[in-house]
Amino acid sequence: MKKEVLYLKIAKVIEGQISSGTLKLGEKLPSIRSVHKLYNVSINTAKQAFLELESKSLIEPRPKSGYFVSKTSQRKFSIPSVSQLKSYNEEPTEDLISKVFNTLNSKDITQFSLGAPDKSLLPIAKLNKGIVKAVRNFEDGGTSYEPIQGNVNLRRTVAKWSLVLEGKLTEDDLVTTSGTMNALFNCLMAVTTPGDTIAIESPTYFGIIQIVKSLGLKAIEIPTHPITGVDLEAIKKVLPQLKACCFVSNFSNPLGSLMPDEHKKELVRMLTEYDIPLIEDDLYGNLFFGISRPKPCKYYDEAGIVMWCGSVSKTLAPGYRVGWVAPGKFKEKIIRQKFSQTISSPALYQEVIADFMEHGRYDHHLRTFRNKLYANCLQFQRAIEDYFPDGTKISQPQGGFMLWLELDKAIDTAELYDRAIQQKISFAPGRMFTQHNQYNNCMRLNYALEWNDKLDADLKRLGDIVKNELK
Amino acid sequence: MKKEVLYLKIAKVIEGQISSGTLKLGEKLPSIRSVHKLYNVSINTAKQAFLELESKSLIEPRPKSGYFVSKTSQRKFSIPSVSQLKSYNEEPTEDLISKVFNTLNSKDITQFSLGAPDKSLLPIAKLNKGIVKAVRNFEDGGTSYEPIQGNVNLRRTVAKWSLVLEGKLTEDDLVTTSGTMNALFNCLMAVTTPGDTIAIESPTYFGIIQIVKSLGLKAIEIPTHPITGVDLEAIKKVLPQLKACCFVSNFSNPLGSLMPDEHKKELVRMLTEYDIPLIEDDLYGNLFFGISRPKPCKYYDEAGIVMWCGSVSKTLAPGYRVGWVAPGKFKEKIIRQKFSQTISSPALYQEVIADFMEHGRYDHHLRTFRNKLYANCLQFQRAIEDYFPDGTKISQPQGGFMLWLELDKAIDTAELYDRAIQQKISFAPGRMFTQHNQYNNCMRLNYALEWNDKLDADLKRLGDIVKNELK
Repeated sequence: MKKEVLYLKIAKVIEGQISSGTLKLGEKLPSIRSVHKLYNVSINTAKQAFLELESKSLIEPRPKSGYFVSKTSQRKFSIPSVSQLKSYNEEPTEDLISKVFNTLNSKDITQFSLGAPDKSLLPIAKLNKGIVKAVRNFEDGGTSYEPIQGNVNLRRTVAKWSLVLEGKLTEDDLVTTSGTMNALFNCLMAVTTPGDTIAIESPTYFGIIQIVKSLGLKAIEIPTHPITGVDLEAIKKVLPQLKACCFVSNFSNPLGSLMPDEHKKELVRMLTEYDIPLIEDDLYGNLFFGISRPKPCKYYDEAGIVMWCGSVSKTLAPGYRVGWVAPGKFKEKIIRQKFSQTISSPALYQEVIADFMEHGRYDHHLRTFRNKLYANCLQFQRAIEDYFPDGTKISQPQGGFMLWLELDKAIDTAELYDRAIQQKISFAPGRMFTQHNQYNNCMRLNYALEWNDKLDADLKRLGDIVKNELK
Repeated sequence: MKKEVLYLKIAKVIEGQISSGTLKLGEKLPSIRSVHKLYNVSINTAKQAFLELESKSLIEPRPKSGYFVSKTSQRKFSIPSVSQLKSYNEEPTEDLISKVFNTLNSKDITQFSLGAPDKSLLPIAKLNKGIVKAVRNFEDGGTSYEPIQGNVNLRRTVAKWSLVLEGKLTEDDLVTTSGTMNALFNCLMAVTTPGDTIAIESPTYFGIIQIVKSLGLKAIEIPTHPITGVDLEAIKKVLPQLKACCFVSNFSNPLGSLMPDEHKKELVRMLTEYDIPLIEDDLYGNLFFGISRPKPCKYYDEAGIVMWCGSVSKTLAPGYRVGWVAPGKFKEKIIRQKFSQTISSPALYQEVIADFMEHGRYDHHLRTFRNKLYANCLQFQRAIEDYFPDGTKISQPQGGFMLWLELDKAIDTAELYDRAIQQKISFAPGRMFTQHNQYNNCMRLNYALEWNDKLDADLKRLGDIVKNELK
């Protein structure tokens, strides 16, 4: 543990030198041996620090010459701005959302707007084998009702698999759901009544805004930093009004922000004091670009107020609709609600996912998938810096597969969308991710697509459309 | 059409003569030829009338001797009583429901309490083949999100298959759901706000009571006749208070009652006048014992106020969670709700069911299944008349697979349940099927089980437990 902290500390120092310009693009780094002497650490620790920096593409090795500051370390575009705390003036966005959704099944359109990985990145053949195996193993072919709480094998495997929670979860703490969306809906339904106020991120996943509307709630949009997530000071100001919070703590959608551990700890402390439930949407947590999976807020939860939601929708199979929630002290209510909404979940897919996790196939897939996503992230950022107009701002996700772009104030991305679709390119306009009249000059791009020259050309065309708009 | 009415009219006259005792057990009926002359109808029509009576087991043919009044026509036990219209004094039944549910997965218990057919009656091998086929045909193994409205093949097939609606439905009118329970939940959520009052049957399926609670609604229990269903006069009295009705029109659970066509028509007329939505739970409609599938209320709906709900949970595969709703004028709202609850349904099972229906396998299964259910129904009724104390009342289901028993007032079936479970027999206590303090001396038995000597012995033991209780 001590060792890990040391090498990360050194990596951070060097990263700071790169971003401040002390170490410039293309410049040679000190050798591993000199770092070993300089910081008084083992050769191994020095090596690990360099590997960490390399994994973030900040430095690159050259054969027989040592390490150099890499091109990707030098960002031309800055990160997007943070919104202000806003009072209610909701305007409906259903039409915009429908418009974007209606093109999702068109195969000739490049789907930067998707909220799911392209199927070329998913282990479909292996999953199919899993289905055939599960069908044969089931005594009843999955025709019987499952326990309301959900498939026992899946709950056991998810509990085992949530290593980052260090054994705080057992199968008995989990309830399976129809994807994370269903977990969020149920959590919010369990802890609010119509008219209640909750806190959400800004920008936030548009699905959460739809749940808020569906349940007759009000939502305060908390300013959210592209790197560190929700602003704790802003939450403090509205705390007495809140009946619940609903945040994506790890690699939020659309910003890709990651709450630092200290923020998570402080958030849970604050909410525990006021007895306000935190619905934690942690469905991107396994798609980290750093050294290890970040902890969820649930890790710091002693009072059972954190309702930890997850799924395989962003990593394996969106269409399976397999998710889960560890609802803390609200478990019984969630189970009752699940019964009154659907009695039980279909057994087969849960069994397939449990088996996939249990036998190391999930772990193997995640490793490959994360590498692809990180490489794609760099390619997309590079392409956008090459093709988009100066002044464009771009997020710096630390995991997940969403990029958030802030364009010139003159651009309305809801209008731009129509022009892009004519050129067979789809993206998610920024206005979808808020209740208020803001982010009109923003867009979300999905980079969980197979990278190739066509994609590069599509990003160039999208950049050209933006440039044309500014003329 | 005219012809059908004629033979049914004649069958009804004869049925009346049997139940009034004009025609006695074992007595010979007039010959087909004399009916032909007596009623001035064709020989064919007379034959059809006799077939109708035979299909209801009221008469039986004997070789070369003609038709005779059969044993099953003579019921020793009368039908259960109808409740009174009650004001609110709800008492919770969650503990009782949990108690019953907790024994559902115990394989050594005879599950008369189940709300689903035993797996021995389901075409599991054929369904499994369907799964393997669907997995191979899917380009993406079902990993992608489906359209929110649901699988197109399933919607198209359900629309085609709902012949009884005479082409009034298209695929565009349907939304797929996670079983009928999910359809009911969504319909009620779409047309009510917390605090609203709706009308339900009494006794009614306990799941509906749980939805009512979950959504913060109030429910008026409408007196329901074991043969003809909800009492229209009682509905009329409370009509101005209602925001919706939620009824099982065909073979209600637990009574097995069937609303006559004229009642359905009048109900829809009344509700249309007041613009009150009718949520019609028609999941037992295909399990008819008569000549043809009864029409749903939806058939009489011109204004789009009937939300017609169905599934394969009672006929094929409860665990698949495949259902649908034709929500009339509330379609857009239902689709928006579905998005905010779960985004989309899993594709695979919907595809399997669509294929099963499309290729005649569903039709074939239903024919066999209905015959088994009807035979079982007669066996159960016979056994109960043999083994239960005099004064027991028993329903006369015209379809479905539930029997409703009314025992001596001294019996409390919630207490009796504990004694039955000790003897490895489970049933559903009557108190589960109402919000009020009533039906404490009633029980529901599921007869969708493989009939054999053990089942006969179990019913005898259950009868003995009741008799002992009365001593």
